[in-house]
Amino acid sequence: MGQGKEEGKGSKAYEQLKPCLERAMALQAALVLFEWDNETLAPEEAGRYTAKIQGALSGAYQEIMTGETTGKLLEKCRKETGLTEAEGAIVREALEEYERLVRIPPKEYRDYQELVAESARVWAKAKEQQDFDAFAPTLKKIISYQKKFAGYRAKKGQRLYDVMLDDYEKGFSMEKLDEFFGLLKKELVPFLKKVMDSKVEIRDDFLTGDFPEEKQRELAEFLAEYVGFDFKRGVLSESAHPFTTNLHNHDVRLTTHYRERVDSSLFSVIHEAGHGIYELGVDDGLTQTLAGQGASMGMHESQSRFFENMIGRNGAFWEPLYERLQEFFPEQLKSVSREEFVRAVNKVQPGLIRTEADELTYSLHVLVRYELEKMLIEEDLDVEKLPKLWADKYEEYLGVRPENPAEGVLQDIHWAQGSFGYFPSYALGSAFAAQMYYFMKKEMDFEGLLRQGKVNVIREVLRKHIHRFGKMRDSRRLLRDMTGEDFNPEYYVKYLKDKYGELYQMKK
Amino acid sequence: MGQGKEEGKGSKAYEQLKPCLERAMALQAALVLFEWDNETLAPEEAGRYTAKIQGALSGAYQEIMTGETTGKLLEKCRKETGLTEAEGAIVREALEEYERLVRIPPKEYRDYQELVAESARVWAKAKEQQDFDAFAPTLKKIISYQKKFAGYRAKKGQRLYDVMLDDYEKGFSMEKLDEFFGLLKKELVPFLKKVMDSKVEIRDDFLTGDFPEEKQRELAEFLAEYVGFDFKRGVLSESAHPFTTNLHNHDVRLTTHYRERVDSSLFSVIHEAGHGIYELGVDDGLTQTLAGQGASMGMHESQSRFFENMIGRNGAFWEPLYERLQEFFPEQLKSVSREEFVRAVNKVQPGLIRTEADELTYSLHVLVRYELEKMLIEEDLDVEKLPKLWADKYEEYLGVRPENPAEGVLQDIHWAQGSFGYFPSYALGSAFAAQMYYFMKKEMDFEGLLRQGKVNVIREVLRKHIHRFGKMRDSRRLLRDMTGEDFNPEYYVKYLKDKYGELYQMKK
Repeated sequence: MGQGKEEGKGSKAYEQLKPCLERAMALQAALVLFEWDNETLAPEEAGRYTAKIQGALSGAYQEIMTGETTGKLLEKCRKETGLTEAEGAIVREALEEYERLVRIPPKEYRDYQELVAESARVWAKAKEQQDFDAFAPTLKKIISYQKKFAGYRAKKGQRLYDVMLDDYEKGFSMEKLDEFFGLLKKELVPFLKKVMDSKVEIRDDFLTGDFPEEKQRELAEFLAEYVGFDFKRGVLSESAHPFTTNLHNHDVRLTTHYRERVDSSLFSVIHEAGHGIYELGVDDGLTQTLAGQGASMGMHESQSRFFENMIGRNGAFWEPLYERLQEFFPEQLKSVSREEFVRAVNKVQPGLIRTEADELTYSLHVLVRYELEKMLIEEDLDVEKLPKLWADKYEEYLGVRPENPAEGVLQDIHWAQGSFGYFPSYALGSAFAAQMYYFMKKEMDFEGLLRQGKVNVIREVLRKHIHRFGKMRDSRRLLRDMTGEDFNPEYYVKYLKDKYGELYQMKK
Repeated sequence: MGQGKEEGKGSKAYEQLKPCLERAMALQAALVLFEWDNETLAPEEAGRYTAKIQGALSGAYQEIMTGETTGKLLEKCRKETGLTEAEGAIVREALEEYERLVRIPPKEYRDYQELVAESARVWAKAKEQQDFDAFAPTLKKIISYQKKFAGYRAKKGQRLYDVMLDDYEKGFSMEKLDEFFGLLKKELVPFLKKVMDSKVEIRDDFLTGDFPEEKQRELAEFLAEYVGFDFKRGVLSESAHPFTTNLHNHDVRLTTHYRERVDSSLFSVIHEAGHGIYELGVDDGLTQTLAGQGASMGMHESQSRFFENMIGRNGAFWEPLYERLQEFFPEQLKSVSREEFVRAVNKVQPGLIRTEADELTYSLHVLVRYELEKMLIEEDLDVEKLPKLWADKYEEYLGVRPENPAEGVLQDIHWAQGSFGYFPSYALGSAFAAQMYYFMKKEMDFEGLLRQGKVNVIREVLRKHIHRFGKMRDSRRLLRDMTGEDFNPEYYVKYLKDKYGELYQMKK
């Protein structure tokens, strides 16, 4: 009886919490829609006025999430034992958000938000004018706020950069990441040098040319649907930078762009479709709750990169598809064999820009950022020294050196948005994907399925092990439950070495 | 001193009210964006889930607008004498909204909202199946709620239909509208018969054909811009039914559709641009407040119809433009003279569908609806009798008789949405436009300006007298201030008789 009464009490708190969280989620969804709309459609001069709306909605969201009522209910729910796993996860996420928001003094937070709202503009201008000094003072301020905020939230003895990392990827502190990036550096930097010394020449000139935009658009829709993106529950639009967002699991939105290099939009759309398929696969019982999104940045990136690379850049994928592709662009691809095409889209070319990197060099771009972020946060690295350090590291790891900050330290928007601790997820995602890939190869004839055009079978496995759980379980747990093994970056190294060793005909 | 103190107090209440209203406006803007998105882009299956978001946002809006704090502050502001005209208007609008919302018991309002959410679906199905009986029970319930709600809000002695009419157009009660529609009936019904008896034959076959959608789209953008729609502060998209909406005066959105009849999208886009130009013209100090939209439904319609008819269907408008139009569709229009084209787009053809009506018959469609609404609300007309009465009135006023309810009483969605009292605004708008037209003809060489392509001069006059004031002043006041005369429907009758008398070569 006593037990029952306890449970009754606890559930009551949760039932009372629910409408608060539902309203908070609705406000979040509105913010998502405004952001989507800004990126894809809103008229040029709307921004300043619409920002007021966004500010008011985000204020209302914060008020609900940090309100006294919410706080008390959350405290009750924290002690509740009778919650389902989903309810428990929702309470956990709400508590985290609550603490993230209440620990920072509102005035400081508002000042910071104003700074960040302005800094994207400052960054964009500095990048355009290739002038790091124009951005440095703003960056300094952002870092100082970020450190202060992390300090408010740090558990006893927790280091500041670890607080930041935890926001993006639970269970991957510096200790874990030093090991991960250490391995990549040790294995991939020398391996890349060997690849570059290889005598194998890969032609890819035919990927650049006059590919009609209308045809690229048709192809993008065809490919998104082919890999399993459901257009009854999603849309594909265009924006300056491709991204994926969603309102819930019945409204998922991708964007892409159409360029002169046909493989740019082609793989970008498969990549975004991977993000989208993740969100489409979240269970109905979780969507529209605080546990209704993908598990983490890294897990999200694992799905997009799995679709882009393990599926999309896989030779087997193109066996049933290549003739179809040639029909889209007969003029350009008529005389290019499937094998030539697949080699071309896997060519290794160390470059300066992360978003254009091939699979092998990609994580080295991330390595540079991880090392610099750590220095900025943990070692008080002087911001002024960034451009040179950046260039030195690129030269060391990738063998290329930026000639100006626009193609160096100013290339990404993340720091201007205050996103410190975000970059490592990009590399982790690729590593998660590789571990999943080897698991699946054991369980099924992966390439055989691609050859038969059965991407849906692969997608279902991912849905079963990953997608449906949303944010209910963290990425390490999901990975362990799926593959039977804790995170193991060796798979990633093996995947890259095997794939590129073969492509560049290197001796084992 | 005492006076100053009083003022200080009052302003304080207004200053405290402002953030509440700003948040309410932000929630409204979010609802606008969701609605826009639903109509133009959202995926097929999103609706059910997105409805939850919309419900939560609209709940939050109602909570702010009817909250105890808001109520008390509004009460203080009501007595305040030191407010500016804009502030006074905002308080007036907020008080009206407050009373609209608090007078209705929340439970009844929720039940009603559920009924209305469902009824659009019931209506659409009934229309598709041409089955009025399937919609009748729902319509009965809606009418009963509408009457009950109007009863809660009626001032002493005020009739129920007048309460509804007042929501759409201040200062136009049944007394005024009986006079207005009485005049139209007396003058236009016999005049239309004479037009139909005229020997003049107007060719319009060339308006129907294979007009490439891409070209129609280009033309739509060209025309919207030509009449003054600013694409830096607006967008044009596509939807099943054309409409205009806006987030503020720097983000105004039109839609259109592309049909086989080229004049359909052509004038529809000028019509919507008229609505859009109105919202673009609202003063910066008013936008994003409760007084920041157009003055009324009727005033809005006056602007759209002014642009569509007084400007767009004016022969002078096409003098500098017609060659350009021919270049868009050389095949179809090469051998059609400008005069033939202008006659064709002004041809009178009494039909069954309001939204396809020509200028002359348009208000007779509205007359039918006004008479029936009055009977439904004030005379307890049995809903079952609607189809026959509808058909009889169409036969009497327009000389055509619907063969099924889909082209009769089921054609408009308004009643299914609970919009009683809305229809009269359509006719009032046309009449306002005619009164403005004669005023402008006195003040300037209206047709001369069109001939010189100077739509902007005309637009500026409308902005100066109408647009910039938003909802600060009501439509009758605006019309009086602009034209120096109270609303006078004789101008509308004169306008139609002069225009069509000439077109159909009738003796004066």
